[in-house]
Amino acid sequence: MSDTRYDVVGIGNAIVDILGRCDDAFLAEHGAPKGHMRLVDDATISKLYGAMGPAVEISGGSAANTMVGVSSFGGRAAFIGKVADDEFGRIFAHDIKAAEVAFASKPVTGKAPTSRSLILVTPDGERTMNTFLGISTDLDQGEIDPATIRASAIVYLEGYLFDRDDAKAAFREAVKIAKSAGRKVALSLSDSFCVDRHRAEFIDLIRGGVDILFANESEITSLYETADFEVAAANAAQDTRLAALTRSAKGSVILAEGLRLEIPVEPVETLVDTTGAGDLYAAGFLYGISAGLGLETAGRLGSLAAAEVISHMGARPNTPLESLARARQLVN
Amino acid sequence: MSDTRYDVVGIGNAIVDILGRCDDAFLAEHGAPKGHMRLVDDATISKLYGAMGPAVEISGGSAANTMVGVSSFGGRAAFIGKVADDEFGRIFAHDIKAAEVAFASKPVTGKAPTSRSLILVTPDGERTMNTFLGISTDLDQGEIDPATIRASAIVYLEGYLFDRDDAKAAFREAVKIAKSAGRKVALSLSDSFCVDRHRAEFIDLIRGGVDILFANESEITSLYETADFEVAAANAAQDTRLAALTRSAKGSVILAEGLRLEIPVEPVETLVDTTGAGDLYAAGFLYGISAGLGLETAGRLGSLAAAEVISHMGARPNTPLESLARARQLVN
Repeated sequence: MSDTRYDVVGIGNAIVDILGRCDDAFLAEHGAPKGHMRLVDDATISKLYGAMGPAVEISGGSAANTMVGVSSFGGRAAFIGKVADDEFGRIFAHDIKAAEVAFASKPVTGKAPTSRSLILVTPDGERTMNTFLGISTDLDQGEIDPATIRASAIVYLEGYLFDRDDAKAAFREAVKIAKSAGRKVALSLSDSFCVDRHRAEFIDLIRGGVDILFANESEITSLYETADFEVAAANAAQDTRLAALTRSAKGSVILAEGLRLEIPVEPVETLVDTTGAGDLYAAGFLYGISAGLGLETAGRLGSLAAAEVISHMGARPNTPLESLARARQLVN
Repeated sequence: MSDTRYDVVGIGNAIVDILGRCDDAFLAEHGAPKGHMRLVDDATISKLYGAMGPAVEISGGSAANTMVGVSSFGGRAAFIGKVADDEFGRIFAHDIKAAEVAFASKPVTGKAPTSRSLILVTPDGERTMNTFLGISTDLDQGEIDPATIRASAIVYLEGYLFDRDDAKAAFREAVKIAKSAGRKVALSLSDSFCVDRHRAEFIDLIRGGVDILFANESEITSLYETADFEVAAANAAQDTRLAALTRSAKGSVILAEGLRLEIPVEPVETLVDTTGAGDLYAAGFLYGISAGLGLETAGRLGSLAAAEVISHMGARPNTPLESLARARQLVN
């Protein structure tokens, strides 16, 4: 779109991931719900860090990962999120800028530290997240630059930010600005526990202004309080114009005004770490949509990006997604 | 050895690695000598970090990596090195303790930050290091706990520490304590530029008290100021009782009182990142020696550990070395 500066602007928690391996017994011992994200306090994260094995530190954050993915496909991406003036903040800012994602937020001094997530990867590749929300949830309306929102074809919102009222208000502000500028709004539900905490407000937001909804199976069934994926999918199709629902190994389902597309997964040689799978699916899908490649190609780009990111540790691509997409002849 | 608490204690720089990829042109543009370590100041590291691509942070430090390797083989290891009371210091301390290496050094407050090394990995897997020496070179004699030295069968010294006088004095103190307790002293030459800066003192130290010398081809030829590996090897055989000289793809040569063993490399499927290859070779060799497995097995354990670490990003093993060694029937 020629009148935009960015294809997508993401708004979310700016997080550095601390990634290590553990077994299922370790998760049980520490009360970490496998496959989910839980919010932990300072004491809990310290205890967990002391008990876990050696780790690596890699920039993360759900919407931030998605923006890095969009950029890796060759899309123009921006990110809005808050970091502190500390080492982790510098790491986050460096990595997102180095991935050619516009990031203008000023680091905050003297308040909470930069947010971090202890991510425990079990031998089956599943990730379990223990997030210490530092400064990133201090995101408020002041952080939402109207010019950036208006200059972006799609505004992508991370559901995790719903856990704080100020951030929720910032979200609504971003939606309002985007809508009045004729831009699209996309939302990721992020986590089924998060959905559970904010169900009614999510449904309001989706009915009120979300153009593209991303959710995995457990999130969408949690949203509509049903055990049946098809029931949840039918509800989603009614509430939003376009939904991309991921189902792990079963691929994804795209619902768009009466249309239903089933997109297979991209095979991976070895599943190493599922961290970022959903984020990168969204990256491929959003890039495909913004490049006008059609729903099926957008879904396949999502599968491709997800496959890349689960074949190694960390939630951001190691290989330029644009070249992978070209090799698969999904883009020119 | 039943009268020891540790098989090996390592003394070296406590460093967190910031690892990213670049091409050869980037190295040339920034004046970074490919395949070597250079010391950089605050301004240079900031400029380089700003210019390089996305990175991951992983604990490193040459002797520290070696101690983690010894522990991964099932050996009893300790590490002496200095960190600051900051995020990188906490990362370093966590990771080395999580690897079951004893680490008692107290973090230093209000002085220099924890040391870090920007490691640039080129497409050929070669690593080029740009090290900002923060607090780690403040290591002085006060840091050398005599009880730990006396309780260790081997004291392993990292040549990099020779770049600071206080650390050099701490080295000599450690050698004195080890010798008077009847312990062995091992030394790694670390880097050919480092050797060049301190040639005479290295030779003095080697002749005066080093029992096991580790060097790669460029370090040993630099030490004896010859282009001929065989000439350098002959000199090393005269100056020390036991030398393990690594030659990259050509394997390693072990020289021990008239004996010469050629150890082949362990094949790797894909060379990803050579960071830590020498450190992990030393780990396997030291473990083999301390476990009384003989020189040939020690050398093969070195090759095995080096092969593991160059098959992924980062200078510490991803797979328990003990299980790899068992699969190769190198240990029981």
